[in-house]
Amino acid sequence: MERSPLAPAAFPDLPAIEGVTLRVARARYKEWDRCDLTYAELAEGTAVAGVTTKNLCCSSEVELCREGVSGGRARALIVNAGNSNAFTGYRGREAVEQIMGQVAAHLSCPASEIFVSSTGVIGVPLPKDKARDGVAAALTAEPCSWEQAAETIMTTDTFAKGATASAMMGGTKVQLSGIIKGSGMIAPDMATMLGYIFTDAAIEPALLQHMLNEANSKSYNCITVDGDTSTSDTVLVFATGKAGNEPLASMDSPGADAFQAALTDICTQLAQLVVKDGEGAQKFIEISVTGAVSDESARRVGLSIANSPLVKTAIAGEDANWGRVVMAVGKAGEPADRDKLGISFGTTQVAANGFPVEGYDEAPVAAHLKGQNIEIGVDLGLEDGRATVWTCDLTHGYISINADYRS
Amino acid sequence: MERSPLAPAAFPDLPAIEGVTLRVARARYKEWDRCDLTYAELAEGTAVAGVTTKNLCCSSEVELCREGVSGGRARALIVNAGNSNAFTGYRGREAVEQIMGQVAAHLSCPASEIFVSSTGVIGVPLPKDKARDGVAAALTAEPCSWEQAAETIMTTDTFAKGATASAMMGGTKVQLSGIIKGSGMIAPDMATMLGYIFTDAAIEPALLQHMLNEANSKSYNCITVDGDTSTSDTVLVFATGKAGNEPLASMDSPGADAFQAALTDICTQLAQLVVKDGEGAQKFIEISVTGAVSDESARRVGLSIANSPLVKTAIAGEDANWGRVVMAVGKAGEPADRDKLGISFGTTQVAANGFPVEGYDEAPVAAHLKGQNIEIGVDLGLEDGRATVWTCDLTHGYISINADYRS
Repeated sequence: MERSPLAPAAFPDLPAIEGVTLRVARARYKEWDRCDLTYAELAEGTAVAGVTTKNLCCSSEVELCREGVSGGRARALIVNAGNSNAFTGYRGREAVEQIMGQVAAHLSCPASEIFVSSTGVIGVPLPKDKARDGVAAALTAEPCSWEQAAETIMTTDTFAKGATASAMMGGTKVQLSGIIKGSGMIAPDMATMLGYIFTDAAIEPALLQHMLNEANSKSYNCITVDGDTSTSDTVLVFATGKAGNEPLASMDSPGADAFQAALTDICTQLAQLVVKDGEGAQKFIEISVTGAVSDESARRVGLSIANSPLVKTAIAGEDANWGRVVMAVGKAGEPADRDKLGISFGTTQVAANGFPVEGYDEAPVAAHLKGQNIEIGVDLGLEDGRATVWTCDLTHGYISINADYRS
Repeated sequence: MERSPLAPAAFPDLPAIEGVTLRVARARYKEWDRCDLTYAELAEGTAVAGVTTKNLCCSSEVELCREGVSGGRARALIVNAGNSNAFTGYRGREAVEQIMGQVAAHLSCPASEIFVSSTGVIGVPLPKDKARDGVAAALTAEPCSWEQAAETIMTTDTFAKGATASAMMGGTKVQLSGIIKGSGMIAPDMATMLGYIFTDAAIEPALLQHMLNEANSKSYNCITVDGDTSTSDTVLVFATGKAGNEPLASMDSPGADAFQAALTDICTQLAQLVVKDGEGAQKFIEISVTGAVSDESARRVGLSIANSPLVKTAIAGEDANWGRVVMAVGKAGEPADRDKLGISFGTTQVAANGFPVEGYDEAPVAAHLKGQNIEIGVDLGLEDGRATVWTCDLTHGYISINADYRS
């Protein structure tokens, strides 16, 4: 696949995180000659938090990640690329448990502190022999860079994705580095959003989970490529505690707000990178909804617009078709009053109080729509709820990727 | 637009309905030389029932139809094609009220017994002068055929759509004839599903509404082209009472079950015709869901599959990608157990008890997917809930229609 036109110029410079060592290896889950198994070794005492797919047909990896997160501690992460191991019943689960046992034996820790994700074809149990050899190779491989790890978790992504943030916590600077993969639910099988954030901050697992939930609600839960939800989506945050800050235990602790802001920042960066690698994407669309009865209501209206095939094709066609935006607002099922609705493209308001703005200047709207970054503003005119969501346009490229291929 | 490959060979032979007279005229709502205003005059005492869009940004036509339906009686229907009059505030409402007043004066009946629908561009108030002249021409035009009426309500449909059914009610045969338009929410603006059914049966409005709700839940509410909900969707049933049957007042009356079956039948035929004219459709897809906790739950699972871009593109690509079906089941949010799930294409089961059927015969599956009518079966293995939904595939044609055009 060609690199997405929305990709950043280069992989960013991510700082190393003390207590995190990255290694990659070739498990050869598919007929390819590339690294496809990523191993992140984490210092003892690393706190973990996670959010996973709401898809009820989730993979064994997701089930076991949830169990692991409830324990609050992590010593390692393994990511398999090329086979999602989803819809494989007990055979798939055995493969995950084998990996957890193998790594736990190496690190002399409980298996529940080993986190495993897999992404790729579904319905094929992860081959245990390939997993065993791949893990063995990874455990003893030379440490690698963030970019190498980000490349190794890719499936049909067209570019490696990483982001960084930092925060001052009670006089101590803490770093966050994260990688992510995903570009829609890509052919020939389901793709998956897998995101991993590593920080040297010291923070209690329960608080870390609280903060991740907060960041998640403003980042991963605000993006969509095609409205289809993977059975494997997972985001994990690992905090090694090596920065030496006073361990954070509550939102009232000094630096908690700063860390929350940094975590939300890096999550938002990573989430936007997934949209920028959306299947067939030519344009990045930011939809800001204001005046809703609540932030959650605003988010739902935003996603209704972002998931509308008619809105997405209109943007692909560089057509200021605000009528489709009206339709998508109305179908969201959230409180809305047709006669208070306002809509803008870029900085130009095209509809106000439920009626087209007469004689609005079409030139800046047309110019804005020709660009790569499209902004749609919707004001519901009711209360103070607001949200921003991100998506990409729907193009012939999406159809080509998903329909022209035959498995 | 080229005629849909899924279109029937010809418009069906619909029986005349006593008490219904159809006329068409040129209002020239757009720069075209075709009839675009349909007038159906109804005998005094005609009962009416209706279902309308749940879109909260609905048109004035929809609001006024709802008010009219609550009265239970109808004397006329006017359908404007070329301008949906949606998102036009009080100006749009005035145009509808003008039409209602004009027809009511002609028929010497209350304006509340005149039903108006409009479909086409949005954001432009229906021009009152064109409407006045068009209505005046229609009121005195020669009666026309069902096919002419079905053609006149079309916007971007590629073929005229009609269906018929009949029922024996206490020794009297009653007829139903219906027309419908819609092919997705078509470019350059929103299209709309508008359906009208006429019958000579005698039936109380409240019972007719009850029966329409029942039929609607198994027909219009079970189809999707792109998951986008028009602001103007309307289905109305008019019962002239001219058949001479003992008027139906309750579901216990003789013939009520037969009429319900006929009404559901004609609604299902009409709904399927809309899917067969779905934008870019090359294949008609029937999704049968069994084993759900309730019929409504089954319907929601079915629509989650039917609305999945990944499932629809897989069918376009003739790819038996059951993994995408699993994903769509799981994302529906309805009760489902991954390890009880079974999936079939055509008559071949490809997955059972949450695992691919080993060594299933791929030849009949591949042959089935090359056809024009695709059947997907999903058994959730829980309880007895079941539903059938219909959709079409998602092709380059959809993108071309909706993105390549600029308004």
